[in-house]
Amino acid sequence: MSVITIERKILEKNDEVASQNREVFLHHGIFAINIVSSPGAGKTSLLERTLTHIKDTINVAVIEGDVQTDLDAQRVSALGVPAVQIVTKGGCHLEAPLVKEALASVDLSNVQLLIIENVGNLVCPANYDLGEAVKVVVASVTEGDDKPLKYPTMFRNASVMIINKVDLLPYVDCKIDVLRQNALSVNPLLKVFETSCVTNAGVTEWCDWLEKNTRKK
Amino acid sequence: MSVITIERKILEKNDEVASQNREVFLHHGIFAINIVSSPGAGKTSLLERTLTHIKDTINVAVIEGDVQTDLDAQRVSALGVPAVQIVTKGGCHLEAPLVKEALASVDLSNVQLLIIENVGNLVCPANYDLGEAVKVVVASVTEGDDKPLKYPTMFRNASVMIINKVDLLPYVDCKIDVLRQNALSVNPLLKVFETSCVTNAGVTEWCDWLEKNTRKK
Repeated sequence: MSVITIERKILEKNDEVASQNREVFLHHGIFAINIVSSPGAGKTSLLERTLTHIKDTINVAVIEGDVQTDLDAQRVSALGVPAVQIVTKGGCHLEAPLVKEALASVDLSNVQLLIIENVGNLVCPANYDLGEAVKVVVASVTEGDDKPLKYPTMFRNASVMIINKVDLLPYVDCKIDVLRQNALSVNPLLKVFETSCVTNAGVTEWCDWLEKNTRKK
Repeated sequence: MSVITIERKILEKNDEVASQNREVFLHHGIFAINIVSSPGAGKTSLLERTLTHIKDTINVAVIEGDVQTDLDAQRVSALGVPAVQIVTKGGCHLEAPLVKEALASVDLSNVQLLIIENVGNLVCPANYDLGEAVKVVVASVTEGDDKPLKYPTMFRNASVMIINKVDLLPYVDCKIDVLRQNALSVNPLLKVFETSCVTNAGVTEWCDWLEKNTRKK
C-alpha cells in the first residue's frame, strides 16, 4: 500500500509541473504533442518525415527523451530543427519537470509546434502528463493487432493513433482492421492515421492534421 | 533523492523474494528463464514454437505476465502446457513476489523448465530479478539495430539475445551484424540466436540450448 501512496505523490508533483508547462505552451501559442510507442515502432523515423514535410511552413522544436544516447537528437538536428535531448539514464518515461528544464534552452517565442518524443515504452509514459495538448501513440503493424487490448491505458490516454510501417502488412501477422477496432474499443474517440516511412503513405494526411491544429503566429 | 531511496527499498525487498524463488528452483532442479522484450517483439509466438518443439521431451510450465488480459496464457494452454497468468493491472514489470505467488499454483515437483514471459517493456523489467537462472532478451529486427545502445541495461543484464523475425530482414532498415555488434559492445558475453516464427529458422538451435541447460529428473 505504501508503494501506491508514493506513486500518487510522484504523480501529483508531476501533474503540478505539467500544468505549469501547459500554461507556458498556452502563453506562447504553442501546440505541444507527446509521441509515445514501444521501442522501435518508428517514432524517430516518422518524426524525420514529419519535420521534412512541415519545417518550411511551421516553426517547430523537438524534445527527445531517451534512456541512453543522443542518437535521436542528432537525427533531428541534421534536419536543421532545434532539438533538446533528455537522457533519463535508466528512467523509463519522461516527467514534466524534465520537460520544464528542457524548455529553458528553447527560444519559445517563435515556436508554433513542439514535438516531444518520449522514451520507447508502452506502459509507464501513459500516466505522466507533460503538459502536452495531445498524446500521439504510434503502433507498428509488426507488433501485431492485439496491443491496444494488452496495453489499454496508453491507447485510452492518447488522442491520436498512428498505425505505422503499413508497407510491412503483407509480411506480418497483423490485420489492420482488427488493430483499429481493438484501439477504438478501448478509446472510441481516437483519431487514426496509417503511415509508412518507406513509401511515405499517410504522411501528408498526418502533417495536414498537425498544420490544422497549429496556430499561426 | 527520496525517490531513489524508495526505489532501493523496493528493489531490496524484490531481491530478497527473488532469492527465495531461486532457492525453490534449485530445490526442485528447475531451470528458470525470464523472457523480456519490447511489446510485439514476438515473445509469445516464439514461446509457442518453443513449446511445440520441446514439450514432449521436457516437462515445462509457463508464467505469463501481462498488463491486461489473459490472451497469452490462453495461447500457451491451447498447447497443453500448464500456464499461470499474472495480470499486473497497469504494472510495467513482473516482481519476484508476484512470481512467488504464481508458483503456489504450479506442481513444481515434476517441472524441469519454467519459462516466465515478462510484460512487454524494454526498460523496467531489466532491474527486477525474479529468481531466474537467465534473462533472455528478444529483439525484433523490425525495431532497428540501435536498440542495445538505447536500452543498454536490458542487454547488459541478459545472458541470451534472440534476434527474432529474421524473415523480415529484406523489408526493414536493420543490419543484423550491426545489431549483434551493438549488443555485444554492451555485453560481450551475450549468447546470440537468430530466429523466425514464420520460417522456424533458428528455433531448433534455441531449443537445443534450452534442452542442454535443463536437468534430467
